[in-house]
Amino acid sequence: MSSARAGGVVAYDPATFEGLRFHTAVTAFRDGTDSPRGYLERCLATIDEREPVVRAWVVLNEDGARQQADVSTRRWQRGEPLSPIDGLPIGIKDLLETRDMPTQMGCAAFAGNFPKRDNAAVWALRRAGAVVLGKTVTTELGGPEPSPTTNPFNPRHTPGGSSSGSGAAVGARMVPATIATQTGGSLMRPASFNGAWGLKPSQGAINRGERQTASMTSHGVLAACPEDMWLIAIAIASRAGGDPGRPALFGPATPPPARRPGTVAVIETEAWERLDPVSRGAFDQVVAQVEAAGVTVLRRADDAVVERFEQSLVGVTDLGSGILAWEHCWAFRDIAANNPDGVSARGKRFFLETAERLGAAGYEEALRTRAAVQATYALLGPRVDAVIAPTSSGPAPEWSGDVPGQEPVRWPTGDPGFNFPSSLLGAPAVNVPLMGVGGLPFGLQVMGQPGTDAKVTAIARWMGEALTPVSV
Amino acid sequence: MSSARAGGVVAYDPATFEGLRFHTAVTAFRDGTDSPRGYLERCLATIDEREPVVRAWVVLNEDGARQQADVSTRRWQRGEPLSPIDGLPIGIKDLLETRDMPTQMGCAAFAGNFPKRDNAAVWALRRAGAVVLGKTVTTELGGPEPSPTTNPFNPRHTPGGSSSGSGAAVGARMVPATIATQTGGSLMRPASFNGAWGLKPSQGAINRGERQTASMTSHGVLAACPEDMWLIAIAIASRAGGDPGRPALFGPATPPPARRPGTVAVIETEAWERLDPVSRGAFDQVVAQVEAAGVTVLRRADDAVVERFEQSLVGVTDLGSGILAWEHCWAFRDIAANNPDGVSARGKRFFLETAERLGAAGYEEALRTRAAVQATYALLGPRVDAVIAPTSSGPAPEWSGDVPGQEPVRWPTGDPGFNFPSSLLGAPAVNVPLMGVGGLPFGLQVMGQPGTDAKVTAIARWMGEALTPVSV
Repeated sequence: MSSARAGGVVAYDPATFEGLRFHTAVTAFRDGTDSPRGYLERCLATIDEREPVVRAWVVLNEDGARQQADVSTRRWQRGEPLSPIDGLPIGIKDLLETRDMPTQMGCAAFAGNFPKRDNAAVWALRRAGAVVLGKTVTTELGGPEPSPTTNPFNPRHTPGGSSSGSGAAVGARMVPATIATQTGGSLMRPASFNGAWGLKPSQGAINRGERQTASMTSHGVLAACPEDMWLIAIAIASRAGGDPGRPALFGPATPPPARRPGTVAVIETEAWERLDPVSRGAFDQVVAQVEAAGVTVLRRADDAVVERFEQSLVGVTDLGSGILAWEHCWAFRDIAANNPDGVSARGKRFFLETAERLGAAGYEEALRTRAAVQATYALLGPRVDAVIAPTSSGPAPEWSGDVPGQEPVRWPTGDPGFNFPSSLLGAPAVNVPLMGVGGLPFGLQVMGQPGTDAKVTAIARWMGEALTPVSV
Repeated sequence: MSSARAGGVVAYDPATFEGLRFHTAVTAFRDGTDSPRGYLERCLATIDEREPVVRAWVVLNEDGARQQADVSTRRWQRGEPLSPIDGLPIGIKDLLETRDMPTQMGCAAFAGNFPKRDNAAVWALRRAGAVVLGKTVTTELGGPEPSPTTNPFNPRHTPGGSSSGSGAAVGARMVPATIATQTGGSLMRPASFNGAWGLKPSQGAINRGERQTASMTSHGVLAACPEDMWLIAIAIASRAGGDPGRPALFGPATPPPARRPGTVAVIETEAWERLDPVSRGAFDQVVAQVEAAGVTVLRRADDAVVERFEQSLVGVTDLGSGILAWEHCWAFRDIAANNPDGVSARGKRFFLETAERLGAAGYEEALRTRAAVQATYALLGPRVDAVIAPTSSGPAPEWSGDVPGQEPVRWPTGDPGFNFPSSLLGAPAVNVPLMGVGGLPFGLQVMGQPGTDAKVTAIARWMGEALTPVSV
């Protein structure tokens, strides 16, 4: 199942795949045998090679990036980097504003939109010396309408959404890391589908800057290794803080070392029945390894609190979709009214029909339901060090467009059922790229209580280091 | 003290001043003896007359407003208004985006800024049929640097900030109502200084749309009467909802009728010692009337819980200023870096020096302090129906610019000390224009527990209807 495919595309094997790392490069920056400029040029060469098929980028600022990399090179030569990620080439999901590139949000209505300012995270990345290379493709307004990006391990499959380009750029080894965002499953699912490490932080832990118009959106990081993932997240949070009114991401300035958990809960979620049997087999192998390593594993059949939490997750996809659609509804209506051809039919259907079905009273009821799910999840806090689950209902599905004459596919970028829990709970979640199914990546999700991002990262690192990758 | 001043400016007397009302006009719209277009033309005539001195507007969309008013006129003629405020000419504080006018935020760095979209509140107002007439002047980025607007009752005095134009336009009878916003005291203080009713709603009760990058900012309404104030607020909230994750403004579709409270607490706040003796005398007269009407009045000397709350308010101005500055700091730094001449020295000083003094750890400590003040305030909930206080430390102070060679004035648009409590508490507050001091307005503030906006409005109406206005 892991033979090379046509066009130089290599099937994914979690045991052998090596993404592009950054933190291992800086020793050579210091001694002058490599440089941020050299590192960037290698990224640009990969982009040249793979971008025609992968289509991960909507704008590249190559000249600007070269200038930033040269300035960074001089800082490393002087021994005065601004941070451990000085010189890191990074892609920014095109929902976030950047002062030197347009922000078009994958939406025809925003074509050419160019506010000349930086999002809080982008502002912080520049202050840490990162090289802001380009804008990565997002689905339309972060919604369900797919983007042109393809999965780097098989172009007939989706890279996931809405952080399509952010996921694919890391999976294709174009850059070591990208910024992604999640409201439903827009960060974790692309992490799973593209073989990337991904951190969806606690709600509010990374300042969202101008993009705070939803109650369960987070900025997060996709990277090829947990070290880069953490270094980037903490570099942003230590400079731009958390959301207004919230504490910022808390944890060490260096990547938290691997930590074996004592007890974890395996969570099925309501999406369990949508998990294909082959992927379920891979996940079962991972769980068996966790148990064999001496970790106590609680399942719904073993533990009343786990069962209660599982029951609270019934309906979570509709709950999350409703909250998401309602909160974007007024803005989406405004955009759609001013640009009737500027938004997709699927987008209108999702945002407007879902929101109208819910209504104002339904939204307030949904907030109360969400608070109850959060309260139930808190009961697990003293009992388990982490919760684990599949990150998606299998590897990336094929996507080649709606079939004319048939009902449009509801989730063309993949089922968000395994991702809505962390969004609704405001909980930190990390994707560990530990499995391959049919030559495509499939991730393990580690989730913790809100505020425990460093602990979740440490446990996820242990999963990545102590367990043997599984290919089926 | 209440004689007419030069230039047709009439000194303020709360017993005789009549602002421009809207809800009383609609009967004539229905029977065809008046029309929204006619109403608008009268507003435009007043603007023509007074704007050269008052300078309340940064942009007027007269042609667009006439078109909107004509469409509204036809709706009333057909007997099909979209809402009770169909045809109401309204000014929008220039911090909020409007799709048909620039949004320049009183800041040179944003000159010409023109995102062609509506803020949530503006979007809702249009759906309710309101005539979005223009953008009212804000101080630079809602900060301490004064605007060119003058007080309509005496142009040598400030109209307050940051909703300078919103306050002055209502005080000058240019329009019946305006949208204002508050982070520290930016809505309530202009209400006090311009003789307007003002509602600063519970935190989150009116969707702030794209402007959610602060933890204690609210959109609210300034109007000449409580009926219009409520009708506008509920028209917005019922269409655009509250902030994401929060319940919307709760209350009836029609203005809550006047309600006499059983018990109120008089709150001094740390700003009490900055209240001038004449204004204090006026406030004491109001409190005496409240007591004479049979309301139980608790003061700090009478009641341990009131005393505890007063003590929690010590340092409230610095606490609020710090939170405000820290939350705007990253964006302000970005603006200042890209536009060194585009922001004022006072703005840089306030936002950057205050934020740097505080630091990240100081900010998180400030959030904890704020939570403690909120918890102390909640103790008053079961004991009193409302809290009353002066809305400002007297009438609008004179302002004719900093004195060269002297330290810049810290609060040129007036002392925010009486306003930070409602902002920090997330509490609803209403200004009742009940007092005149030296021919200038001076307001009474009624504040309630978060979520009780309708009750606070009802009690404020009782204060306005049952008490005799005081002039000193």
